[in-house]
Amino acid sequence: MGISLGEIAGRYGCELHGEPDFVVSQVATLSGADNDSITFLANSAYRAQLETTAAGAVIVGPDDLEACPVAALVAKDPYIVYAHIAAELHPAMELAPGVDPAATIAAGAQVPASCQIAPGVVIEANVILGERVYVGPNSVIGARSRVGDDTRIWAGVVICHEARIGRRCIFHGGVVIGADGFGIAKDDAGTWIKVPQIGSVTIGDDVEIGANSTIDRGAIEDTVIGEGVKIDNQVQVAHNVVIGAHTAVAALVGISGSTRIGSRCLIGGHTGFAGHITVADDVMISAGTAVMNSIKRPGFYGGVAATVDEASRWRKNVARYRHLDEMARRLHKLEKLVEKKLGDK
Amino acid sequence: MGISLGEIAGRYGCELHGEPDFVVSQVATLSGADNDSITFLANSAYRAQLETTAAGAVIVGPDDLEACPVAALVAKDPYIVYAHIAAELHPAMELAPGVDPAATIAAGAQVPASCQIAPGVVIEANVILGERVYVGPNSVIGARSRVGDDTRIWAGVVICHEARIGRRCIFHGGVVIGADGFGIAKDDAGTWIKVPQIGSVTIGDDVEIGANSTIDRGAIEDTVIGEGVKIDNQVQVAHNVVIGAHTAVAALVGISGSTRIGSRCLIGGHTGFAGHITVADDVMISAGTAVMNSIKRPGFYGGVAATVDEASRWRKNVARYRHLDEMARRLHKLEKLVEKKLGDK
Amino acid sequence: MGISLGEIAGRYGCELHGEPDFVVSQVATLSGADNDSITFLANSAYRAQLETTAAGAVIVGPDDLEACPVAALVAKDPYIVYAHIAAELHPAMELAPGVDPAATIAAGAQVPASCQIAPGVVIEANVILGERVYVGPNSVIGARSRVGDDTRIWAGVVICHEARIGRRCIFHGGVVIGADGFGIAKDDAGTWIKVPQIGSVTIGDDVEIGANSTIDRGAIEDTVIGEGVKIDNQVQVAHNVVIGAHTAVAALVGISGSTRIGSRCLIGGHTGFAGHITVADDVMISAGTAVMNSIKRPGFYGGVAATVDEASRWRKNVARYRHLDEMARRLHKLEKLVEKKLGDK
Repeated sequence: MGISLGEIAGRYGCELHGEPDFVVSQVATLSGADNDSITFLANSAYRAQLETTAAGAVIVGPDDLEACPVAALVAKDPYIVYAHIAAELHPAMELAPGVDPAATIAAGAQVPASCQIAPGVVIEANVILGERVYVGPNSVIGARSRVGDDTRIWAGVVICHEARIGRRCIFHGGVVIGADGFGIAKDDAGTWIKVPQIGSVTIGDDVEIGANSTIDRGAIEDTVIGEGVKIDNQVQVAHNVVIGAHTAVAALVGISGSTRIGSRCLIGGHTGFAGHITVADDVMISAGTAVMNSIKRPGFYGGVAATVDEASRWRKNVARYRHLDEMARRLHKLEKLVEKKLGDK
Repeated sequence: MGISLGEIAGRYGCELHGEPDFVVSQVATLSGADNDSITFLANSAYRAQLETTAAGAVIVGPDDLEACPVAALVAKDPYIVYAHIAAELHPAMELAPGVDPAATIAAGAQVPASCQIAPGVVIEANVILGERVYVGPNSVIGARSRVGDDTRIWAGVVICHEARIGRRCIFHGGVVIGADGFGIAKDDAGTWIKVPQIGSVTIGDDVEIGANSTIDRGAIEDTVIGEGVKIDNQVQVAHNVVIGAHTAVAALVGISGSTRIGSRCLIGGHTGFAGHITVADDVMISAGTAVMNSIKRPGFYGGVAATVDEASRWRKNVARYRHLDEMARRLHKLEKLVEKKLGDK
Repeated sequence: MGISLGEIAGRYGCELHGEPDFVVSQVATLSGADNDSITFLANSAYRAQLETTAAGAVIVGPDDLEACPVAALVAKDPYIVYAHIAAELHPAMELAPGVDPAATIAAGAQVPASCQIAPGVVIEANVILGERVYVGPNSVIGARSRVGDDTRIWAGVVICHEARIGRRCIFHGGVVIGADGFGIAKDDAGTWIKVPQIGSVTIGDDVEIGANSTIDRGAIEDTVIGEGVKIDNQVQVAHNVVIGAHTAVAALVGISGSTRIGSRCLIGGHTGFAGHITVADDVMISAGTAVMNSIKRPGFYGGVAATVDEASRWRKNVARYRHLDEMARRLHKLEKLVEKKLGDK
């Protein structure tokens, strides 16, 4: 349980300024590190902490090397190197294969001996689990769902019937996959008729979904989450949404039905998407944006209309916003008048 | 497992253009349908897909009949007819009555033999279930709660003590009904005193509540959800809210304490309501709106202040918003000055 | 099960206008109260209800005494007195100590005999519970976590490994504590590498967390929730956030990673915080605010850019917002022109 700086330098292509044989055994923050720890500086804003760190070694970018008072590993992207080292020094929980006696596995479910099934788990009929799947306490996997190799489902997760889950996925506590989409139609009497949701959910390999997020099943065809997609906590993905590969979605985002998000997008928290729109690949959207129309070109977009302000000023601005259109008309009228009377011609 | 077009036409009052004896056995999308399938066109924006569909039959509105290359069922509201047919062809899961041995039913709870109680369910003391209730894996029903006939509670749902749930309701995974409302009072020392939440939750018949939504119990009297209300995922309903019958609430909406929403309202996603306000019947509110005051008349309302824009322009607009009140004052001053000097009198 | 008005007056320092021996046995609303009930008026907006109440007694502020038609207890802060009396008359559920046979307690977990462990609970290895802890049905406590005396964990809660929870906390249904933070780093190939989340969560004494809220574990060091903090439903607290003592956070708030919120703050619902910012002590933020930068001084802040409006006007204002910067430039140009031509010098 330790790596020498020489090993790190070799493995991740870093330039080492320090003793190659020096061994670090854990990761730490710049301010919390001791001589046994390796840490990193990815954001120069924290440079002051670098100067006083007691770490055994620090992974830094080229520009921060000079300020590093201890052994340094210079990397183009210190955060990526840190991520790899942290995973080596602090590996994920090792599986203890077997089915806990307090789990309920329905007849016809396939649970390989390499899986770990925790107490309270319910696996319904004809579920097929891959090798080395972990299902945490009190999670539920609905009938006829399939889960790929090495996927880890934490506690209290609900996967409804007929979902298709890829390999190496991670679902955190309270995630609900495949609940009915919000499909309702109003009849002549003004009451809502439920529209059956007969599609399901298809989730690619290497998808991570944060705590209490919800991915609804499709109305007819499937809701689709592409490979490598990373979804934060409390995100809502409605029926028939398609999210392209390697897109990352921050917390509290809502994506309405049938909207298609491209690949490699970055979606800021609290952002909302209207239904039936399309977002191109490589789109970055700032937090809190209301995306009411399709975005056709890659690029950086935003939309939060105002940021925090002192209440006295904020209140006045809100009051003025109600009259923004009127202001615009008055401005136009004034321009016309001034031009007519004072025009420079 | 199939319906003839003639049966459909008769049952739902459609005008049939095709063979009455032709049988369809499943629903599909316009683009995914084969000859065995029936589909629909409710939104003329998808008309191009109609023209190339391989469906056995399509439910269309009168204006789309001509463009339909296959058998057509003409209906005033194709989506409603589709909903009924989909429910016939893809009926809800049939109950398998009985209590799973891995469920825990407290002494004094009434669970009719027609109910299906899944593994891991916990039903506390003096709960009363109606006939044919389904309680999914690992769901919990708290002491003294009542659940009406034919209600379906999916997996991982928590219903706290003393809730009153109507008939034919559907609660999706992770729903929490009847947790304490957020009642706190600050004492002289600046610490919060918990205000006991001794009301409960009353939910009418035919209410559907989406995954991970939360409906808090009332502080003194009950939180009330009217009959036929449809609530999407991750909606927060605070203590003593009242929602009128047949109102539909989209995902991620928050309704603060003691607010009353009328009947037959439509609430767009991510909308927030202040507490202690009233919204009239038949109000439609666009997504992302901040409803800070009561709405007294039926109608269509909105409030999202800005929609997505390219970041360069968006940033400039945000910066200007901070000075909106000042802009309004400058405009007013200029108008006065121009009027005084150039007035047309 | 009842308190005399004289006892109340003595215990909470109220001035009694009524019979000291008169006994009330429950709390009620002004409009729902009968002669057996005590109620309160904390908001003069409800004064009309006071005038017609049938309550046995009402707790009122000095200004409302005259309008009270029944026995009155005059208090500086009627709501605080009400909270205390409600807790006396409607005490929290009494514990029934013991471990339900349908719970799973791992070897090495310490569960004192004074605790109540409900059916379906899973307590993993080396968990340490304090005295009189309640763990509700189907809740999960991960390996090596500690929970302080008298804490109550309702149904369907997930506490991940190594969390440290204080005394007298209350966690409502569906809360997830200690899921991995959203730590991802993009490698050269454009795929996300998971950054191990090896910190945990530390929660102080007397913290209440609402249904389906999520508190992520720290990336390296802990996420920290100070003592007496009150968090409403569906709040998202990201990794390494620090929330100071006695701060209250309303529903649907999102706090991004490493942000520090001060003590005694009040955060309105649907508010979002950017990451790596700091909010001072004693800050009050109105609902729906986007807090993108640090707030350095105590005070009242807001930021929702627009509130609900009739759709016709709202749509025009949204359209104008896109051109706000251009409007500001045109106004400036016009001012210059008018000043040059008409200046009062």
